[in-house]
Amino acid sequence: MSDILSRTIANIKPLDKTSMSNAKRRQDILTKPTGSLGRLEDLSIQIAGIQAKSMPQIKQKAVIVMAADHGVAARGTSAYPQEVTPQMVLNFLRGGAGINVISRQVGARVIIVDMGVAGKLDSNPGLVSRKIAAGTQDMSKGPAMSLVQATHALEVGIEIVTGEIKKGLDIVGTGDMGIGNTTASSAICSVMIGKTVAEVTGRGTGLDDKQLQHKIAIINEAIAVNRPDTPNPLDVLAKVGGFEIGGLAGVILGAASHHVPVVIDGFISGAAALIAAGLCPQAKEYMIAAHCSVEPGHKLLLKHLGLRPILDLEMRLGEGTGAALAMSIAETSVRILAEMATFSEAGVSDKGE
Amino acid sequence: MSDILSRTIANIKPLDKTSMSNAKRRQDILTKPTGSLGRLEDLSIQIAGIQAKSMPQIKQKAVIVMAADHGVAARGTSAYPQEVTPQMVLNFLRGGAGINVISRQVGARVIIVDMGVAGKLDSNPGLVSRKIAAGTQDMSKGPAMSLVQATHALEVGIEIVTGEIKKGLDIVGTGDMGIGNTTASSAICSVMIGKTVAEVTGRGTGLDDKQLQHKIAIINEAIAVNRPDTPNPLDVLAKVGGFEIGGLAGVILGAASHHVPVVIDGFISGAAALIAAGLCPQAKEYMIAAHCSVEPGHKLLLKHLGLRPILDLEMRLGEGTGAALAMSIAETSVRILAEMATFSEAGVSDKGE
Repeated sequence: MSDILSRTIANIKPLDKTSMSNAKRRQDILTKPTGSLGRLEDLSIQIAGIQAKSMPQIKQKAVIVMAADHGVAARGTSAYPQEVTPQMVLNFLRGGAGINVISRQVGARVIIVDMGVAGKLDSNPGLVSRKIAAGTQDMSKGPAMSLVQATHALEVGIEIVTGEIKKGLDIVGTGDMGIGNTTASSAICSVMIGKTVAEVTGRGTGLDDKQLQHKIAIINEAIAVNRPDTPNPLDVLAKVGGFEIGGLAGVILGAASHHVPVVIDGFISGAAALIAAGLCPQAKEYMIAAHCSVEPGHKLLLKHLGLRPILDLEMRLGEGTGAALAMSIAETSVRILAEMATFSEAGVSDKGE
Repeated sequence: MSDILSRTIANIKPLDKTSMSNAKRRQDILTKPTGSLGRLEDLSIQIAGIQAKSMPQIKQKAVIVMAADHGVAARGTSAYPQEVTPQMVLNFLRGGAGINVISRQVGARVIIVDMGVAGKLDSNPGLVSRKIAAGTQDMSKGPAMSLVQATHALEVGIEIVTGEIKKGLDIVGTGDMGIGNTTASSAICSVMIGKTVAEVTGRGTGLDDKQLQHKIAIINEAIAVNRPDTPNPLDVLAKVGGFEIGGLAGVILGAASHHVPVVIDGFISGAAALIAAGLCPQAKEYMIAAHCSVEPGHKLLLKHLGLRPILDLEMRLGEGTGAALAMSIAETSVRILAEMATFSEAGVSDKGE
């Protein structure tokens, strides 16, 4: 394991119990029946533990969207052609994509990273270029990338989130773009949680029944050819992963090492979370699951990670759209904790008084 | 039925099908796989139909919080004393309650209405005083209010939401405050949807097992004494309802009559929605269910109304807190429709191209 990676993992500590019990105590004296804000209360307590602050704050928000291509897409596992990856990156840069719209509404900045888009992308002040290669290799024939590239992808994720944290960041969301990346995510999911490929593979951007069967067959092929080693997440990432997935796993580890809560978007981000949690189980406590996508593997991987999604709106767009929405609800939870009056401040009689 | 009420109901028309099909057509050409924004897409299409605009807008938002007391609270059906109703109204007016915090975040104005608080409330520029009486009568002994009062409560709701719409309002949420109001809501719910009182009655602000059994017994008593007439929602409201519940039913009907989507908060607002839908089934199409509260009757009444909640965060605070959160997601849905680039605008290849 590289120095950066092992140092980052070593810095991921258990949540701060004192801040959590202070936050819990305060929730119980705010002017509402005990527990009546349900999961918003739990969320505020988790964030208190993550930020190690009794009164956590969420002001500066960002979604890091990582884009990359997948060699396996040549096998026809996606409903869309590969050229869509760079086209959508341009759409992100122009502000016309779903993630741009939602981020504008919730006040989050969007960081677009080229982790390994196959097509050429003109340089653009809004684009962070960290291209590891022009797409992964076809994982149905051999490893998607080398171990060096996998490590590099993780390091880039750590570096980018660390840079954003230095600029000021209270919560971060993960987002992805990459034609073929549900194929890689299903492979990772199957290997990491021990379910069959058929159980964790869905229609992605819109496959029909026959195309879905083909996708499952290709993923089985990739796993048979590569024999990824479950206890070694770096090996899994290299053999059946993707550059954006590795990058996002790095974002998750980097955020956790800096006490920043990380909102995990959909299925692809979930696959990244599996890699991150495999490398450092402690990182799970820093994760907030944004939503439950319609990809069948997503629900299973969330269960495996012990995460309960905030939203269930049948979204399956990726890009961090679910994360941006859920981030706003995380913000609500800490605003409640900070801004609501207590019973004594408001002169309201408590239960049984 | 009063003139205002029957005129309002006559003005509630079916949703605009042309706007809905235009919105649907546009959703399908935005730069995302078809249907990949799930319920956000459906929501934008519903709102297009409600506002009768192909490109609906949600800019001005408000939550109308109606407060009142319940004579039946004297029977000990709530964990909190009745004095909490006016105390919480003051908390609303000072900005210290949950609804204030969430509304500030989502940019909604909060309108606080005294529909029938028992205690004295000093006049306050922020308080809309429409006190029908100092709390309802004890419904376990006889009708909670007269038919004249029930009609009046509905008219006040219509009048208030109409006034707000005149000031500018693109979406409205309902909110409630009233010690004892889950008791009235369970009674309404049982009568309107034909479930036993035990099936639709929960712990409200925090009853223990014995207190819950007592609450169920009191509601059964109230229904036995009053024999509310299910096909006549005005009779149900008068016999086992509350002033805030009648007012909120009026808000719902008034909003629908003006093509304004109305976000139904939790269980008490749901009881108001049952009254509104009983008076005018067409009004259901204008409703958006904010969330599913932990009150057992809430899920059943949402099913009865054919509504699927947007959020499920185990909230049970009332005040419109769920509505304010969900309103922000409704806003997301129409922003997506208006602001996302189409495939051709963005030069992105569509599926199978």
